[in-house]
Amino acid sequence: MADSHKETAQAQDHLHKVSDALASGAASRVRRLIHNLRPAEIAHVLESIPKDPRIILWELVDPDDRGEVLLHVGDEVRSGLIKEMEAGELVALTENLDTDDLADLLQDLPGTVIHEVLRSMDLQNRHRLESVLSYSEDTAGGLMNVDTITVRADVSLDVVLRYLRLRGNLPDLTDSLMVVDRNDRYLGLLPLSTLLTMDPELSVAEVMVRDVEGIQAETTAVQVAKLFEDRDLISAPVIDQNGRLVGRITIDDVVDVIRDEADHSLMSMAGLNEEGDIFAPVFSSTRRRSIWLGINLMTAFLASWVIGLFEATLQQIVALAVLMPIVASMGGIAGSQTLTIVIRGLALNQIGKSNSRLLMTKELAVGALNGILWSVVVAVIAALWFQSAQVGIIIGAAIIINLAVAALAGFSIPLVLQRMGIDPALAGSVLLTTVTDVIGFMAFLGLGTVFLL
Amino acid sequence: MADSHKETAQAQDHLHKVSDALASGAASRVRRLIHNLRPAEIAHVLESIPKDPRIILWELVDPDDRGEVLLHVGDEVRSGLIKEMEAGELVALTENLDTDDLADLLQDLPGTVIHEVLRSMDLQNRHRLESVLSYSEDTAGGLMNVDTITVRADVSLDVVLRYLRLRGNLPDLTDSLMVVDRNDRYLGLLPLSTLLTMDPELSVAEVMVRDVEGIQAETTAVQVAKLFEDRDLISAPVIDQNGRLVGRITIDDVVDVIRDEADHSLMSMAGLNEEGDIFAPVFSSTRRRSIWLGINLMTAFLASWVIGLFEATLQQIVALAVLMPIVASMGGIAGSQTLTIVIRGLALNQIGKSNSRLLMTKELAVGALNGILWSVVVAVIAALWFQSAQVGIIIGAAIIINLAVAALAGFSIPLVLQRMGIDPALAGSVLLTTVTDVIGFMAFLGLGTVFLL
Repeated sequence: MADSHKETAQAQDHLHKVSDALASGAASRVRRLIHNLRPAEIAHVLESIPKDPRIILWELVDPDDRGEVLLHVGDEVRSGLIKEMEAGELVALTENLDTDDLADLLQDLPGTVIHEVLRSMDLQNRHRLESVLSYSEDTAGGLMNVDTITVRADVSLDVVLRYLRLRGNLPDLTDSLMVVDRNDRYLGLLPLSTLLTMDPELSVAEVMVRDVEGIQAETTAVQVAKLFEDRDLISAPVIDQNGRLVGRITIDDVVDVIRDEADHSLMSMAGLNEEGDIFAPVFSSTRRRSIWLGINLMTAFLASWVIGLFEATLQQIVALAVLMPIVASMGGIAGSQTLTIVIRGLALNQIGKSNSRLLMTKELAVGALNGILWSVVVAVIAALWFQSAQVGIIIGAAIIINLAVAALAGFSIPLVLQRMGIDPALAGSVLLTTVTDVIGFMAFLGLGTVFLL
Repeated sequence: MADSHKETAQAQDHLHKVSDALASGAASRVRRLIHNLRPAEIAHVLESIPKDPRIILWELVDPDDRGEVLLHVGDEVRSGLIKEMEAGELVALTENLDTDDLADLLQDLPGTVIHEVLRSMDLQNRHRLESVLSYSEDTAGGLMNVDTITVRADVSLDVVLRYLRLRGNLPDLTDSLMVVDRNDRYLGLLPLSTLLTMDPELSVAEVMVRDVEGIQAETTAVQVAKLFEDRDLISAPVIDQNGRLVGRITIDDVVDVIRDEADHSLMSMAGLNEEGDIFAPVFSSTRRRSIWLGINLMTAFLASWVIGLFEATLQQIVALAVLMPIVASMGGIAGSQTLTIVIRGLALNQIGKSNSRLLMTKELAVGALNGILWSVVVAVIAALWFQSAQVGIIIGAAIIINLAVAALAGFSIPLVLQRMGIDPALAGSVLLTTVTDVIGFMAFLGLGTVFLL
């Protein structure tokens, strides 16, 4: 805990110092402060300050760093900064980037700038870039880099060693060379560690790693992340449909995918966007969130309508009005636990045909047991509070019903949504609350009408 | 979408085939099926099936793979499997593991087994293991591996090259050698790519990378993950307080930290544990979740008690009972959006003293604007529904009040909890709902009592 405070303090320190310097208008001090920060750290400060100082700070970032910094900020902050820049500046900031990063960024730039950037590249780099751009951003092809070093299988390690020394440097995060045939078809990997430890007289074919398969360029980014996690990869070859090597994916790009994917469920469940800007202008935040509130309002009105059906009952037995939120709330909480487990299980690919019935049985059993347990507690308290055994029995029965329904709904809503192609993390909780509210009020007030009037 | 279906189908295919074979009791078929899977994939199948077939499947896993498989399953599934094994088997499965992984696993094993494992190791490995064990699991020291290759700064690259060839292999995920002085103090990195591309006559001191600082062994795992993300590292040196090299952290361990950390917020917000077993026995799931339901029940009773204060009002104006859930629900939804943004901002270190007041002002403004917008909508609908302008005005006012309070609470609850050392993701949503329910009912029924009776 003490440590974590210290680190938070350290990270906050950058933010604090830069904000202070910005507020006092000391441009040279700001420039000196951010000169010592890495692009990701500058991005972090930019994301943590409101729009006006953000633009002032952005103007002070070293032009050589700007491309890298833009890659590290969220989509919304990024497009805000791009809007502030002129075409010439935008072309300049693309100059120091890797092809995969450039491809990412390019999709956010205005058409004239894209044209200019492509025109200013040499033919080889232009072909490379166009190859990355031909794949969608969230596939292996969109993630990949094209700066691969390839070797042939029939040469000796000594030839490779002499070639590398002639070359003078390797692309970032190169842990292996790629072995290809004369048609560029991927054959295997030659790890740098093999080059350094094996007898130079051996041929590449004799020592190369054959059991790392190429990743198809159309594979989704999420699946690529899973492969990297499962196999502890640092980089992996990407191939086209004919088995030809088209690039390689490195782990730094995969880490971003993992982080975004995990954030996505959390933010979606509150109707938010994981790429959003925490300092988005008040009006645009209001508009986006008001849609979510509007959708939820419809479900709230539906619940009210159900209550309205029992107006006559409520008029006579006001205890029901006092107690009814308890039934709805218990159902909502229990259901959202099942819902969260299923949404995460789906994201991690843990749930499928072979085990879904078993999981449903388990969730139903948990719901029923918790229903029985808590219905007794609530029944006793309610009976004592309103001096009526009947009121106690009715609320107890309503809670058992609602918790069983909550388990069923929490389990089946995300599965149905996924089959319909709708994101379960986004729509799941609204639908669940609708079900638990409607069933909760209906069961409790319905039982009350039948047995208490 | 089509692609993602295909991949899901593929991952589900393992699960499906193995489940089928298990159900039909065909042990040799199961063994053949899992023989082709990697440890992480076997772990995934184990996590996705209920307890009884899980134990049968576990018995069929190749003993050489068991250590790796255990490392890939969640804590709860892991301890279930360990419970089923005998001491001798447990000792055997520790044999093929890296020191950092062994240290992770050892903490879950019974005392007699730990003793046995330590006794069976040679002195060097034992010292290494004890060094990792001396740090807490969620620090750099606990994450690190001790199989580092060190070199001196004053030797030539040629000497290093000959040493590596003599050695014959490098530890997994080695992208750099570590340069140390005669007292083992860390000086810099010697990347393999430098070794392969620079003139062998140069000395290590002339080409080593000096600007990668060592990570202090006490640094928390979360902070280590942040460093790796910000600096695109594959491996990094770990040093003790005297600057002496004690090990290195590799990115495969960091990816696990990132995944767990992001999962933690999602699961905690529903009162769940990210290390939990989706097929935990019904009774233990029920017990764990019932605690969460019990805590929420207290807040629901608090809300009921507030409603109870207005029994007399409700008896006369039953429309208030019908409409009151709308006020509470709108507050809960709006508040949870602010809460989620703040919880994520805290986890990503985006929120601190320098910007928290600004963020609060922004969230309050968004809450107020959405309050005004939706209060008008609700007021009109309610007025028409109950043919009473007064009812409309009162519910509108209550919604504005509750949305402003929701923004304040959603903002300040996580900050206060963090300062108290309580996990905001775990306790935040319960507290928030308590506030929005109590204030919502109080405002609406209070205004109703004053102006409608």
